[in-house]
Amino acid sequence: MATGSGQFPAMHAVSGFKLGTTSAGIKTAGRADLVVMELAAGSTVAGLFTQNAFCAAPVIVAKEHLACASPRYFLTNTGNANAGTGQQGLSDALQSCETLSAAVDVNVTQVLPFSTGVIGEPLPMDVVLPAIPSALDNLSEQGWAEAATGILTTDTRPKGASLTYAVGDAEITITGICKGSGMIKPNMATMLGYVATDASLDPELLHRALRLANEKSFNRITVDSDTSTNDAIMLVATGGSGVVIDEPLFEQFVEQLSLIFIDLAQAIIRDGEGATKFVSVIVDSARDSAEALAVAYTIAESPLVKTALTASDPNWGRILAAIGRAGVADLNVNLVQLQLNGVLIAQQGARATTYNEELGQQAMASEDIEIQVSLHRGQASETVWTTDLSYDYVRINAEYRT
Amino acid sequence: MATGSGQFPAMHAVSGFKLGTTSAGIKTAGRADLVVMELAAGSTVAGLFTQNAFCAAPVIVAKEHLACASPRYFLTNTGNANAGTGQQGLSDALQSCETLSAAVDVNVTQVLPFSTGVIGEPLPMDVVLPAIPSALDNLSEQGWAEAATGILTTDTRPKGASLTYAVGDAEITITGICKGSGMIKPNMATMLGYVATDASLDPELLHRALRLANEKSFNRITVDSDTSTNDAIMLVATGGSGVVIDEPLFEQFVEQLSLIFIDLAQAIIRDGEGATKFVSVIVDSARDSAEALAVAYTIAESPLVKTALTASDPNWGRILAAIGRAGVADLNVNLVQLQLNGVLIAQQGARATTYNEELGQQAMASEDIEIQVSLHRGQASETVWTTDLSYDYVRINAEYRT
Repeated sequence: MATGSGQFPAMHAVSGFKLGTTSAGIKTAGRADLVVMELAAGSTVAGLFTQNAFCAAPVIVAKEHLACASPRYFLTNTGNANAGTGQQGLSDALQSCETLSAAVDVNVTQVLPFSTGVIGEPLPMDVVLPAIPSALDNLSEQGWAEAATGILTTDTRPKGASLTYAVGDAEITITGICKGSGMIKPNMATMLGYVATDASLDPELLHRALRLANEKSFNRITVDSDTSTNDAIMLVATGGSGVVIDEPLFEQFVEQLSLIFIDLAQAIIRDGEGATKFVSVIVDSARDSAEALAVAYTIAESPLVKTALTASDPNWGRILAAIGRAGVADLNVNLVQLQLNGVLIAQQGARATTYNEELGQQAMASEDIEIQVSLHRGQASETVWTTDLSYDYVRINAEYRT
Repeated sequence: MATGSGQFPAMHAVSGFKLGTTSAGIKTAGRADLVVMELAAGSTVAGLFTQNAFCAAPVIVAKEHLACASPRYFLTNTGNANAGTGQQGLSDALQSCETLSAAVDVNVTQVLPFSTGVIGEPLPMDVVLPAIPSALDNLSEQGWAEAATGILTTDTRPKGASLTYAVGDAEITITGICKGSGMIKPNMATMLGYVATDASLDPELLHRALRLANEKSFNRITVDSDTSTNDAIMLVATGGSGVVIDEPLFEQFVEQLSLIFIDLAQAIIRDGEGATKFVSVIVDSARDSAEALAVAYTIAESPLVKTALTASDPNWGRILAAIGRAGVADLNVNLVQLQLNGVLIAQQGARATTYNEELGQQAMASEDIEIQVSLHRGQASETVWTTDLSYDYVRINAEYRT
């Protein structure tokens, strides 16, 4: 299941960024599962990676390579996360990079590896390595849609976003894809995301732009509170447009980049495992951002709130209970106000006098649900996006791997 | 669903502690839903209550009354939590106490109210108050089993524990009941628990015994990470045995009391909503207790670990991923060891060389699962008990209230 239309958008090519997709047959014969991306020489690259201590072998290798060279290629496989694989996993990730680098004559450190899929099984090198040439053959600036499909795991649909905007007489393009559906609570990044622009940014500015856009997008979503071992989000600036983003143009660039990031992050939630609702949890008038996020995530991750959402049941008592256990110091419950899709549900520690079940049922019948909590103790506000918890979430995760 | 035999044990009466149960028809006509407990004059009482900021009206009243008088009566209803009910809820809780106190001629502050059930609906006083005399008529030291049934909500079975032990020539009895199945992550207490002993303890010692026993039992369980608004655990010492527990006898008493508390807490997990597994998560060789608990709870509350448990799938990668995101500073993943029911699964950041899927399947086929994580960085050890996450958990919580 999934919410929203899920239509894949028209993708503007990014000059200097090519994608090639093929099928290695890692998990399922014939399924697109190996993607190579080629960055024009001179591109700058910024990346953010999972904070999970058990980070996967490709994450370790990608971080090392990114630190010591200018990347020219990203190599991504789905079907196997190469995580929890110890020394063998590191050696396999490195060997994949070597095979690709030898074929295109770059330094091995200029290749970054990415993997997603089941944890704890060795990467099947016998099928991964022979497929690399075919992915290289398919490299094209038009390759976004195929690549968006080639990186999926339990996702039900490819996820992309693309825009252009004017800077003086010139035009800048930003285009990206991502994947992710379960084990989603990114901490510095999503499962896997790749965004490219033909603007030119120096590495410091590019990294700053990535952090800013990521903070309000991939770092604000949760399907099931489980942070993956393989999260990575890469931002590439090829410079193909000839436009240089400097400090005066930076704010506008981050604004446009954030639109792409939020689109992609929300696409992951709309395709969250078993999702039948797209839920925005907005906490306002908190003392600070940390407090707003604590309340928002406690609601967004409460199994009882999530099962009530599945049932379209305006069980607001469960939302109050979640707020109450979020660890907010000296919370005055009498000041807390709760709205569901604009309907005032609770205030002064109890049901609002204007509320009745019919109003609640109407609000909850919608596929898109907005839970708005006003704490009335400060100025901070935060928004987190999440899904409901359905039978299908359990089915998918009880059956996956078997 | 539930795990274990669920047989209700033989309950030793506690001299000086009576229980009377009746049906008020609060939610379902004819169902036992109102329980009065009578404490002999001179009994000492200790209580622990939920830390949820949205604590229910009866919790507020019970804490106030406990602070200013010696309790003689506990009044408990199921079917309605009287939580999220604002001023009206407080007034209703107080009026229930008044009605009972007037009937038995004690001070209103000597009655403590307890409620459990749906949040956010007013307590139906028109049926609660008239039922109180009938509960009083049924008061008996033999009334434990009926009371254990009369406090249930989504529980599928009553929960009790009872023992006697010798102190010199005398014998001490400890007997208790509890309820709880969902919204279970007690923080200082469980949903509702009542334990009585015929020993005599001064209030300070009694409170200390309660804290010690509670810390390793009700404060070590989680079904769904949701802390209830109504949690309360009450410990009563009637003195009916004539034995005074002083400092020299205290340690032994706490040991015996802890047996009862652990029995009751485990019974809640065995009857956790939708439970098909009884899961012990043991984290050893941690730097300190907080670190061991952080890892244990992250595993115990991971939806991905819990759905793998439902499927009896030895998906140990999800357990490693949970350990990795538990926030342990400078975790050396190469030292982490993972065992499932005694089978060595992972070490040195990867699958153990002795492990194969067949061994894992065998270990996971059991109804009782022990997940043992060794961090190898210190001396602290903690155990947490939890359930799996099944279709039935979603069904129960999507359908409850409707």
